[in-house]
Amino acid sequence: MTRTVYVNGDYLPEDQARVSIFDRAFLMADGVYEVTSVLGGKLIDFDGHLKRLDRSLGELEIRNPLSADDWLAIHRELVTVNEITDGMIYLQVTRGAPGDRDFAWPDPETCPPTVVLFTQSKPGLAESPAAKVGMKVISIEDLRWGRRDIKTVQLLYPSMGKMMAKKAGCDDAWLVEDGFVTEGTSNNTYIVKGNSIITRELSHDILHGITRAAVLRFAREAQMEVIERPFTIAEAQDADEAFITSASAFVMPVVEIDGAVLGDGKPGKVAARMREIYLDEMRKAAI
Amino acid sequence: MTRTVYVNGDYLPEDQARVSIFDRAFLMADGVYEVTSVLGGKLIDFDGHLKRLDRSLGELEIRNPLSADDWLAIHRELVTVNEITDGMIYLQVTRGAPGDRDFAWPDPETCPPTVVLFTQSKPGLAESPAAKVGMKVISIEDLRWGRRDIKTVQLLYPSMGKMMAKKAGCDDAWLVEDGFVTEGTSNNTYIVKGNSIITRELSHDILHGITRAAVLRFAREAQMEVIERPFTIAEAQDADEAFITSASAFVMPVVEIDGAVLGDGKPGKVAARMREIYLDEMRKAAI
Repeated sequence: MTRTVYVNGDYLPEDQARVSIFDRAFLMADGVYEVTSVLGGKLIDFDGHLKRLDRSLGELEIRNPLSADDWLAIHRELVTVNEITDGMIYLQVTRGAPGDRDFAWPDPETCPPTVVLFTQSKPGLAESPAAKVGMKVISIEDLRWGRRDIKTVQLLYPSMGKMMAKKAGCDDAWLVEDGFVTEGTSNNTYIVKGNSIITRELSHDILHGITRAAVLRFAREAQMEVIERPFTIAEAQDADEAFITSASAFVMPVVEIDGAVLGDGKPGKVAARMREIYLDEMRKAAI
Repeated sequence: MTRTVYVNGDYLPEDQARVSIFDRAFLMADGVYEVTSVLGGKLIDFDGHLKRLDRSLGELEIRNPLSADDWLAIHRELVTVNEITDGMIYLQVTRGAPGDRDFAWPDPETCPPTVVLFTQSKPGLAESPAAKVGMKVISIEDLRWGRRDIKTVQLLYPSMGKMMAKKAGCDDAWLVEDGFVTEGTSNNTYIVKGNSIITRELSHDILHGITRAAVLRFAREAQMEVIERPFTIAEAQDADEAFITSASAFVMPVVEIDGAVLGDGKPGKVAARMREIYLDEMRKAAI
């Protein structure tokens, strides 16, 4: 089936979905994105993603070109026409296509933002076999830019990190800066020690994960202690458990870090429990 | 006049020049570029740009999709059809458009690189009035990623820096990391003290400027001492002169840094001389 995608007001077959070569995202990575999961045909934590979109656009002084109602309508239309039961909706807003290349920003009055959305069907997304096996990760130096709290399309280094992990026979890379883990290539990172969940505090250094916020809230409600502070790879290797969160992986256990097996090498109980709670609560609140 | 641009083998009117929304540069900034200046209808330091393109592509494991002869033929064709006397030719190669979004790299066998080129006409490019007045720059923290030696399209922060400079009534921003200037938003930076030209040494921290290499060669031939080491903003403010180099600005004097006027506030003699030599030599060698 050919996907129907959304480009600047039009619903188009995916092979006709194109943008100008002068688009600021193509030439200068001047755009932001969000990925919302779909479970049972409904959107997961949609409001959270819209709020973060607003924040990312605001930090770059790009006008949000659509209302919350419009965004929701497009998401739902794409879910319907593409018959998505489980999967993701990817959304990107760029500073537009000013018709030429210039480091200076174009006049927003004459250069409206570019809006692109498309779906990715992932049947059984929440029943990922990886959640039962756990992920193996390597650590690499975090070479990304200094404003990782803005969800920009500057994803070359995360993409390189994913390939380094693949070449090492692993599933992902954890990024390390000044000796401490920042986050994964496209996810927030956690370790578990006893009744405590430890994860790096919010700053410009990491993405302000929508799933992170929900999971920490559910963890506190489940009487876990949440400690927001940086941790090292050595501390993670010595932890009882480790896991990551992201909008499309939800909560995913990590069982090996730089070749060091955590515990008995099986996904930990806290990760499994947090995944269960997260999916339960999010399915209930899905729209 | 509508420009003719090059996209993946086709010469197209600029308003029909489009790429897939799944292009890796649009979604993940996974592409590299070069800008070659044109003076009197001829290409300036073309071989240098092709060599750096090869290096950038090699670092990202992207195949160079065209031979040196092909690149030259496309450049010349664009100069001819767009009647460029003075100006620039922009060239971008991306990892291609795999038809979906994935952090993992697509198979290069089935996903060829995307190639885009376009011209920018700049009559009198070498007679820029700015060269007679000099530039004012501000300093800002260098928040870019750690591999600035690869000329990628991850230009959001340089673009933000240019806007910060504009808002401060200046022409550009110098980027500072750990107390030392790395480079400008799209140029290498230099200070002059007596008979010495001081510029940061090559590393992963800065772009390996094609113009930088030529200017340093000409400086040595002109019996100037070239010292490659980092310098601070304070040292620059206290220098006899300052200037920048880039493929399209050539050698451009800097007369003010963070509000501090250098010398008598007029472009320095060394910058003017290096600009003259550079333009003379490069016009002679243009192809």
